[in-house]
Amino acid sequence: MKSPIPDYLQSVVENVRSNDGGAPASYIDVLAKADTSKLAVALAMVDGHIYSAGDDKIEFSIQSISKAFVYAIAIEDAGLPAVLKKIGMEPSGDAFNHLSLQKGTNRPFNPMINAGAIAAHSLVVAPDATLEQRTERILDALSRLAGRQLQVDEKVFEAEMKDANRNMGIGYMLKAAGIISCDPAVAVRGYIRQCAITVNVKDLALMASVLCNGGVHPVSGEKLMPPESARQVLSVMATCGMYDGAGEWLATVGFSAKSGVAGAIMGALPGQVGIAAFSPKLDEHGNSVRGVDICRKLSADMGLHLMNSSQVALSTVQTSVATIVAGADTSKVHHPNCDREVVVFSLRGAVRFAGSERLTRALEEELSGPHSDACAVVLSFRETYSLNAIARRVIHEDIKRLLEDGRNVVVTDPSGVLQWDPLKTPRPAVVKNEVEAREVIGGAGCRTVTTSDGW
Amino acid sequence: MKSPIPDYLQSVVENVRSNDGGAPASYIDVLAKADTSKLAVALAMVDGHIYSAGDDKIEFSIQSISKAFVYAIAIEDAGLPAVLKKIGMEPSGDAFNHLSLQKGTNRPFNPMINAGAIAAHSLVVAPDATLEQRTERILDALSRLAGRQLQVDEKVFEAEMKDANRNMGIGYMLKAAGIISCDPAVAVRGYIRQCAITVNVKDLALMASVLCNGGVHPVSGEKLMPPESARQVLSVMATCGMYDGAGEWLATVGFSAKSGVAGAIMGALPGQVGIAAFSPKLDEHGNSVRGVDICRKLSADMGLHLMNSSQVALSTVQTSVATIVAGADTSKVHHPNCDREVVVFSLRGAVRFAGSERLTRALEEELSGPHSDACAVVLSFRETYSLNAIARRVIHEDIKRLLEDGRNVVVTDPSGVLQWDPLKTPRPAVVKNEVEAREVIGGAGCRTVTTSDGW
Amino acid sequence: MKSPIPDYLQSVVENVRSNDGGAPASYIDVLAKADTSKLAVALAMVDGHIYSAGDDKIEFSIQSISKAFVYAIAIEDAGLPAVLKKIGMEPSGDAFNHLSLQKGTNRPFNPMINAGAIAAHSLVVAPDATLEQRTERILDALSRLAGRQLQVDEKVFEAEMKDANRNMGIGYMLKAAGIISCDPAVAVRGYIRQCAITVNVKDLALMASVLCNGGVHPVSGEKLMPPESARQVLSVMATCGMYDGAGEWLATVGFSAKSGVAGAIMGALPGQVGIAAFSPKLDEHGNSVRGVDICRKLSADMGLHLMNSSQVALSTVQTSVATIVAGADTSKVHHPNCDREVVVFSLRGAVRFAGSERLTRALEEELSGPHSDACAVVLSFRETYSLNAIARRVIHEDIKRLLEDGRNVVVTDPSGVLQWDPLKTPRPAVVKNEVEAREVIGGAGCRTVTTSDGW
Amino acid sequence: MKSPIPDYLQSVVENVRSNDGGAPASYIDVLAKADTSKLAVALAMVDGHIYSAGDDKIEFSIQSISKAFVYAIAIEDAGLPAVLKKIGMEPSGDAFNHLSLQKGTNRPFNPMINAGAIAAHSLVVAPDATLEQRTERILDALSRLAGRQLQVDEKVFEAEMKDANRNMGIGYMLKAAGIISCDPAVAVRGYIRQCAITVNVKDLALMASVLCNGGVHPVSGEKLMPPESARQVLSVMATCGMYDGAGEWLATVGFSAKSGVAGAIMGALPGQVGIAAFSPKLDEHGNSVRGVDICRKLSADMGLHLMNSSQVALSTVQTSVATIVAGADTSKVHHPNCDREVVVFSLRGAVRFAGSERLTRALEEELSGPHSDACAVVLSFRETYSLNAIARRVIHEDIKRLLEDGRNVVVTDPSGVLQWDPLKTPRPAVVKNEVEAREVIGGAGCRTVTTSDGW
Repeated sequence: MKSPIPDYLQSVVENVRSNDGGAPASYIDVLAKADTSKLAVALAMVDGHIYSAGDDKIEFSIQSISKAFVYAIAIEDAGLPAVLKKIGMEPSGDAFNHLSLQKGTNRPFNPMINAGAIAAHSLVVAPDATLEQRTERILDALSRLAGRQLQVDEKVFEAEMKDANRNMGIGYMLKAAGIISCDPAVAVRGYIRQCAITVNVKDLALMASVLCNGGVHPVSGEKLMPPESARQVLSVMATCGMYDGAGEWLATVGFSAKSGVAGAIMGALPGQVGIAAFSPKLDEHGNSVRGVDICRKLSADMGLHLMNSSQVALSTVQTSVATIVAGADTSKVHHPNCDREVVVFSLRGAVRFAGSERLTRALEEELSGPHSDACAVVLSFRETYSLNAIARRVIHEDIKRLLEDGRNVVVTDPSGVLQWDPLKTPRPAVVKNEVEAREVIGGAGCRTVTTSDGW
Repeated sequence: MKSPIPDYLQSVVENVRSNDGGAPASYIDVLAKADTSKLAVALAMVDGHIYSAGDDKIEFSIQSISKAFVYAIAIEDAGLPAVLKKIGMEPSGDAFNHLSLQKGTNRPFNPMINAGAIAAHSLVVAPDATLEQRTERILDALSRLAGRQLQVDEKVFEAEMKDANRNMGIGYMLKAAGIISCDPAVAVRGYIRQCAITVNVKDLALMASVLCNGGVHPVSGEKLMPPESARQVLSVMATCGMYDGAGEWLATVGFSAKSGVAGAIMGALPGQVGIAAFSPKLDEHGNSVRGVDICRKLSADMGLHLMNSSQVALSTVQTSVATIVAGADTSKVHHPNCDREVVVFSLRGAVRFAGSERLTRALEEELSGPHSDACAVVLSFRETYSLNAIARRVIHEDIKRLLEDGRNVVVTDPSGVLQWDPLKTPRPAVVKNEVEAREVIGGAGCRTVTTSDGW
Repeated sequence: MKSPIPDYLQSVVENVRSNDGGAPASYIDVLAKADTSKLAVALAMVDGHIYSAGDDKIEFSIQSISKAFVYAIAIEDAGLPAVLKKIGMEPSGDAFNHLSLQKGTNRPFNPMINAGAIAAHSLVVAPDATLEQRTERILDALSRLAGRQLQVDEKVFEAEMKDANRNMGIGYMLKAAGIISCDPAVAVRGYIRQCAITVNVKDLALMASVLCNGGVHPVSGEKLMPPESARQVLSVMATCGMYDGAGEWLATVGFSAKSGVAGAIMGALPGQVGIAAFSPKLDEHGNSVRGVDICRKLSADMGLHLMNSSQVALSTVQTSVATIVAGADTSKVHHPNCDREVVVFSLRGAVRFAGSERLTRALEEELSGPHSDACAVVLSFRETYSLNAIARRVIHEDIKRLLEDGRNVVVTDPSGVLQWDPLKTPRPAVVKNEVEAREVIGGAGCRTVTTSDGW
Repeated sequence: MKSPIPDYLQSVVENVRSNDGGAPASYIDVLAKADTSKLAVALAMVDGHIYSAGDDKIEFSIQSISKAFVYAIAIEDAGLPAVLKKIGMEPSGDAFNHLSLQKGTNRPFNPMINAGAIAAHSLVVAPDATLEQRTERILDALSRLAGRQLQVDEKVFEAEMKDANRNMGIGYMLKAAGIISCDPAVAVRGYIRQCAITVNVKDLALMASVLCNGGVHPVSGEKLMPPESARQVLSVMATCGMYDGAGEWLATVGFSAKSGVAGAIMGALPGQVGIAAFSPKLDEHGNSVRGVDICRKLSADMGLHLMNSSQVALSTVQTSVATIVAGADTSKVHHPNCDREVVVFSLRGAVRFAGSERLTRALEEELSGPHSDACAVVLSFRETYSLNAIARRVIHEDIKRLLEDGRNVVVTDPSGVLQWDPLKTPRPAVVKNEVEAREVIGGAGCRTVTTSDGW
């Protein structure tokens, strides 16, 4: 069977091709002469699989999309507090190249406008780093995100340097305002160099998928940034990425995005998919006309919207809750030779607070009601992919309370999602599989048990 | 076992109690005299279960939080296009009671500032509705959301009417700007009346959980608003709800929220949880000081952040992918009397695009590789709670292509999540359970099959 | 001889008639239906003589031009400090009907926008005055300025009241902001009533000439406002009167002006001329298109510009200095029977600091040099029309010092411009005419003197 | 007699000395270390006489006050239209060092903020001029204004260059916006060099007096700029000079002014006086604290306010009118041997429109009434210091009409103020003095005449 997904992307490409509006960036020759017929889209799943359509091998300069990643690098190199002291995170409502400094703090409004991006660049490596050091750092980091070695397009760089008056102006303003401490000309030159790194839509989609994946590269598994950084970048992209009305973009498209003047747009829906689109003609905000069309279409067709709430909810919750509420996985297992029952609670999927809450509620209800005389409680995490911090905390507290109630508790946790700390909660029996569990329960005063599906 | 969740909420309440900053709203006596020691919090899960702590029975006027719901009512009564023509959706950066009209359109920036809220109120029922009609409509809708009959606090209403100059000013301005078409005094009076409806934190959390649940009431199951409306309300709350810097709230707290001058804050994380906090002392933005503290604490402790991406991602994706990749649910079933195999693909949880993509990829890989000679393909949706539009579309396309490849395809879909349309894809065998599936496959040239766990 | 001035004005009217741009105010029928062919201009000299051309008998509603005079009335009734506390005096750069309140104080930016004008209206008579009292006060004051009984056009008033939403909005906002303390509806109704008073261009030019004349009516000689009020009104009109760029209007036209939506513009050049123009078609700022043309033309042709500095300077200064320097009025008078000379210093015109400085310098130079042995010093104010405060103070100080030097001093001051206070400077001889002066000097040891021209 | 004016200025200095508020500019050492006890004031009359008090020999860098004069130089070198295309003339309400570019045109708001001043500097000499050429041009022009050779303080220049980041930023921004066409670094360096020229208060007062005197140097009589330039500079200084609220400065102080960060303020009242004050401590707007006090005090004490209308008016008007109305100079001269009378109209002072209007009215009234049978009309300009364009035009028209009426007309114009063009109005007899006039009138059919005072 041939997957229909590439065909769908192809249809998206054909659908938006007819929109011939806009014009390529004209301020430098190398962009003005871009082949405006080029058009591409790519999706990167959070396991690293990439779909693409159109001119997906065409390379273009990353331009302002680099701002999102260099912001993350600045957070890593200088620390989030230092970054927030120099760069705000509010939409400015201004054009990308406007010098928008916040009253009082003099901070650029956000890292997605040039002023904030130059400030972020200046925080890479260290305030006194050289241009070469910063460029190497950034090129290395972006290459890791893309999973291949990226390069600077020297022609683009040289051309941009000849038209750098506004950015030079911004650089000196930032220096005067105390926002950058290095030589403004070095920061601006470095910033322009970072913008001249070339990528294609597959690179961008994959880079976005790292943000969607909490900073972990979906292919290499390398932890390229802490989840807090990925979250910060996605948050700022959500409100400040598209120059446009922050409210309208969030309401209508509904995912974080960042555009570049070469015609690319990168989008990211946390936990789901990295998105990239490319076509050189820009609208009056400097966003790719067809790129915006593609984002709107993908959001509408595919439900890629942060506020598409119901399904996320039901999914996470039902994974665990249904298990228990529906009784499907809460097996009362009667052994022929045993008068007492063992109650098995299994929890499935990636569990966050809601999942742990369902488990807790089930425990409370079942053990105070129908199964109050169960000889043992089995908590099975065999199908639990992950627990977030609050879920883990709730479940550890549940176990502690069950033990305090005098229950025999057996935990099946083959993947170790509970991150057991014996010094903190030493008593419950933690087993690898059903066989071990049976032995433990048997030893706890029960006869042997069998279950049809393993715990 | 006693659930630790109420204890956690109690600890949150005690944790923020020491913050004695701010002052209650002073513009009307009835608010100025509020008992500032009162403090409460509530969480409503998307199945309607409510946790609360503190003074959770204290009633207070809903005030500006009504704006979120009346916006949804206006969308229902007038239609989204008509609402967007009169009310924008951009953060204004201004105080709640500022008259912020957008240049060109004269629209109030958003429905969360008074101007936009008065405009939204005027669209309830119909432009020529009476005050009583609108009040009844709103009171009824809010009562359904809260799951109990709410009331207007006449004392609050009367007091607010005596201090209504600014809102009267806004009303006349809106009339002059062509934004409202009814008598401004009627719209303002109705708006003030809607703000005087009283609720407690449990009401608010439950009301929020409807937004988180795609508009469906988690207890009654009643569809109180279409998912598009819930999404629109949550989107606008995300950027415009807290008066404050939109960017900072989204980056640091990370969920949609709306505050009221009586000291309440309502929060909502799509698909997860509705949140409410209450304490009368306000900061300089008019947000409850302790309420903001509670929101920050819940977000940090519980990971309640829209951009907490990784886990959502893994969850949704692994629900289906793991199933197949791990081989656990992709059973090669060898019947003793049969030389050919049947491949079963089962999909679990609430499936969105990512899940359908995993299924598609598994189909492509398995059927072109190890199981290319399988005598039948079974697609089991027994554990699929829901499919969104794109997932359904992808899977229908998969089936169509399998059939075109000449495969015998059996679909087990007891809940009907595929929403099968025989006119469109008539050929595959759709069965209710494994017995039926076996018969079909048998009839397709296979001998009977057994599986240990049902499909 | 027939004066060419009416012919000049007629040529101005014909010159601008061809400019057919703009459109009459459309918000009320009575203005929208105005005869747009009407066109008139008037100049009022500071002695009350009026020149006019075009449709100078056509009456129209005064509209916003009333703001200038009602501001003066508010200053009289409430005092300048109270007025400044409620109304600023900065150009807002906003449209006339924008609600522009200054941050911090909440004051309307200036009294020439509606918000400031409504606030000014509310200060007329007293905060608790009735609509009738304020209307009577304003109608009386404006009638005195125009030199005839003016009337309210009830049709205009009624029509404006039907379209008063924006002003009602402003009124309630001002009440909410603590700027007005009366019922907003009463203030707005009163403001709209003041705008409906009808005038013609000759009325307006005469009213403006009172401002140019330091508050004294040039015909009746009645002191209608103190010079400080006239100065304040002219200052505010200079920067805030034309909605337009304050800087451009001052630089290019160069005189204070105020326009009204019925198509009139009133201009005023301090000390020189009151100006009025009328034609109903308005530009996008709400200023009469032809009226602006007329103002530009009058300024360019007639040098009516506040910064046309050189001539003012030379005039005032030379009036006195030339007298002395040229020797024309500083007569060395030799009496045949006398060995010592009398030196006469006469000062001409309206003397401000510069004139008194010239006199002082002449006294110092002549009496320490060529005429150090003069038997008497005559200071003649026979041709001095006025002295301002500083000039009077300098001259009194001169006299005191001459007396301290032991000089015989005679002052000829038939009009009493020195405002002599015998308690302060009792010693010099003050005489009414030359005959008296001669006697005094004779008695001081000189024989009689004759002069050819009188002192 | 010793003049009281220096004593008055001394008292002003002592009066403001107690105001110890503010702080000297701290951004460069050389200003931060200024002797803050220094305090000086100077007035320059429009004939060049200078009064001063306090530390009037202390030199300081001219700083932003140079902006006013360099604006005039730019107008001369590039022409007003070219200057207006690059630099606006609106108050920006922003700080002096804010980059305030007007929407649409990208022009700096005005030449008094740094952006506008750098743009003005770049227009000096020519766009491609060198730094040395511009510096020489400016130093030469300012030296002519001051009447002595000025110098650049190299220490100040070097210090400012080290702190030039903001101005460099502005320079690059202006280049990017297409406002300046030269190398931004050259323009900024040149601008900073112009700011480092040193002056004292007497220099500044004299320089201001050139602006007050229509561009003519009051001592040398040299025409340093056309009157239109002086007017433009004074207009822009009036609304944009003091950073402060344009409206409040004009209303309360009432004369054009410009301040510099070294602590100087230069003021100018057209036609009256140039003003300079100096004291290093600055307020939050960057204006000298005591300098502002001095300006307020001088305005209040001395009536130095543009809108002090009444006296200007009376002065100009009465100069001519009184002459005629009072009959003093309208002599009916009866010769014993002649039955017909000669009517003499003499006009005094610096005559603008109002004066010519009075003459016209007198001609019309006298010749149609009491003196309708006069044998000749004598128009005497013996005491007329100047005529502005409109006055000259009106009088020429009067003469033409008198001749058309068949009157014998004799014009006495010893100074040539009428600027007679025989090609346009050839017929009237123009004479130098009374003797000639008599001859002409005699030849016109009259016998000889005598007058007591000459015409």
